[in-house]
Amino acid sequence: MSIILKINTMDPSLQNELDSEIKTVRSMILKHTRTKYHGVRDIIEDVLDLNGKMLRPLFVLLAGHFGEYKSNKMVNLAASIEMLHMATLIHDDIVDDSKLRRHRESVQSKYGKDMAVYTGDFLLAKSLSILNAKEYEASHIERLAKGIERICEAELLQYQSRFKTMTFKNYLRIVSGKTAALFAISLYVGASESKCDDKLSNQLGRIGYELGIAFQIIDDILDFSEDPSNVGKSIKNDLKKGYFTLPVILALEEQKLNIEDFSDAEELLEGIDLDKGIEYSRIIAKKYTKKAFKRISKLPESVAKNALEAVAKHMLNRNY
Amino acid sequence: MSIILKINTMDPSLQNELDSEIKTVRSMILKHTRTKYHGVRDIIEDVLDLNGKMLRPLFVLLAGHFGEYKSNKMVNLAASIEMLHMATLIHDDIVDDSKLRRHRESVQSKYGKDMAVYTGDFLLAKSLSILNAKEYEASHIERLAKGIERICEAELLQYQSRFKTMTFKNYLRIVSGKTAALFAISLYVGASESKCDDKLSNQLGRIGYELGIAFQIIDDILDFSEDPSNVGKSIKNDLKKGYFTLPVILALEEQKLNIEDFSDAEELLEGIDLDKGIEYSRIIAKKYTKKAFKRISKLPESVAKNALEAVAKHMLNRNY
Repeated sequence: MSIILKINTMDPSLQNELDSEIKTVRSMILKHTRTKYHGVRDIIEDVLDLNGKMLRPLFVLLAGHFGEYKSNKMVNLAASIEMLHMATLIHDDIVDDSKLRRHRESVQSKYGKDMAVYTGDFLLAKSLSILNAKEYEASHIERLAKGIERICEAELLQYQSRFKTMTFKNYLRIVSGKTAALFAISLYVGASESKCDDKLSNQLGRIGYELGIAFQIIDDILDFSEDPSNVGKSIKNDLKKGYFTLPVILALEEQKLNIEDFSDAEELLEGIDLDKGIEYSRIIAKKYTKKAFKRISKLPESVAKNALEAVAKHMLNRNY
Repeated sequence: MSIILKINTMDPSLQNELDSEIKTVRSMILKHTRTKYHGVRDIIEDVLDLNGKMLRPLFVLLAGHFGEYKSNKMVNLAASIEMLHMATLIHDDIVDDSKLRRHRESVQSKYGKDMAVYTGDFLLAKSLSILNAKEYEASHIERLAKGIERICEAELLQYQSRFKTMTFKNYLRIVSGKTAALFAISLYVGASESKCDDKLSNQLGRIGYELGIAFQIIDDILDFSEDPSNVGKSIKNDLKKGYFTLPVILALEEQKLNIEDFSDAEELLEGIDLDKGIEYSRIIAKKYTKKAFKRISKLPESVAKNALEAVAKHMLNRNY
């Protein structure tokens, strides 16, 4: 198994190093979650396999290379953050309630709700307890706990906004909490734990935040544009559950329409100018992409900077 | 609202102080969990009201009185531990899946599964993030995270043992993780954060552990003996779901029977000598009670010692 990125523009020896360390992150997650409860292991392996991009661990490792890189320390931190992310994915599956989540069977329908709740909680707790207080800044552990809070608050805002006309501001809040916050934490903590100064750590954190926003908006756009038959399936599914992403939000805003003007998902998709919504979404994605790249360009010259730029390009230069 | 204990044998001024501080714990929990998502607040208020015994916060405060007592610090720690406990109760409701949980509507049936998952996660994260790294020992925050792990592992063991003949050893493992571990942590951390030495903090932790085991076994006995009509309702409900507590486990062991020998809950209740099972359970409860009191008696003489003894009596000297 190789990691996601085969990026030509990246320094080959760093690429190899990252590749091997991401593999170690994976095996460390399996090691930390070794229990005699076979179900737990099955769920964790499934989530690791299906969600193989490992972007957050990669950001931790990359950020570490801006400072005094300590491999064991960074790999363990990367594992912790990925475990936290996995926990939220597993719990999301419970609330999502659909048997199929983006073309794969959900954890809850495969293993049962009980196992999904406990395994998620176990991962959450474990992600914090493996950050030994002697090795890691206690304030960083606190920051991770706050990250979980932000994710929960974003999920709550999203849940309570169902079937309502959403403002762009609230959409941004949700995306910030659900995606960007953890990207930001990954880069910030990776840098700070490697003795980067506050200014550099904060800059990297901001870059993570902007990359996260752009990444999520692009994902939302691709949901609509990638595969036309998709619009008839998972998108409609989301709409039926009352979840609207940026293209729909901006199309409604442009036409001064409200969700309440439509009686169902089909009517909504027919009644709005979705192409316009996608076009506007692209503009916003590009704005955040530009911000992130501008900030990256100001980082001190280094192999790490080039690598971060390469990863960002790989993440964001998709055909959307 | 007054706290649970009106205990004659307790020093009246300490009783008043604890009473007022437990109220502060309650309002602090509400303060820490203030969000604009009204549903979260409703759930938290419900769980606070229905689960008003506040034993874990009380243990934190009591343990603090064995050292250099700092009210704000102890109250905040007590709130953190109670929030952690509340999170596990809310998530338990999801997996329990029954509309009525011990005669009250479950969180999930009242507010929906989504809200229950997110609110539990939010509480878990918050319980750790309010322990500011500057004020509390980082290793204690780690200990709390490990506590959550232990609770999850116990829940998993319990879940995977459904419909199986359980050994006393596994029953003890479950009770240790689900109840005793957090009682132990409450007393240990309360003491240690108040500058008690390691020996005293560990002794108090052990007392918490033994009280927790005794308390849970007594609860299990009372489920059977308190109200005969109960045996026909919530007990049968538990049995139908495959959950067996100590009286059943010991009755089966005594008669060298297996769960597999019975086809349903009714047959099981008729086929085993439940009185014998209850009698044996009492013996074990008394064993742990005695252990705890013996250990308490060896603590240094103080108002706190007398208060802990009084609370322990109140908890354990029930008519079972």
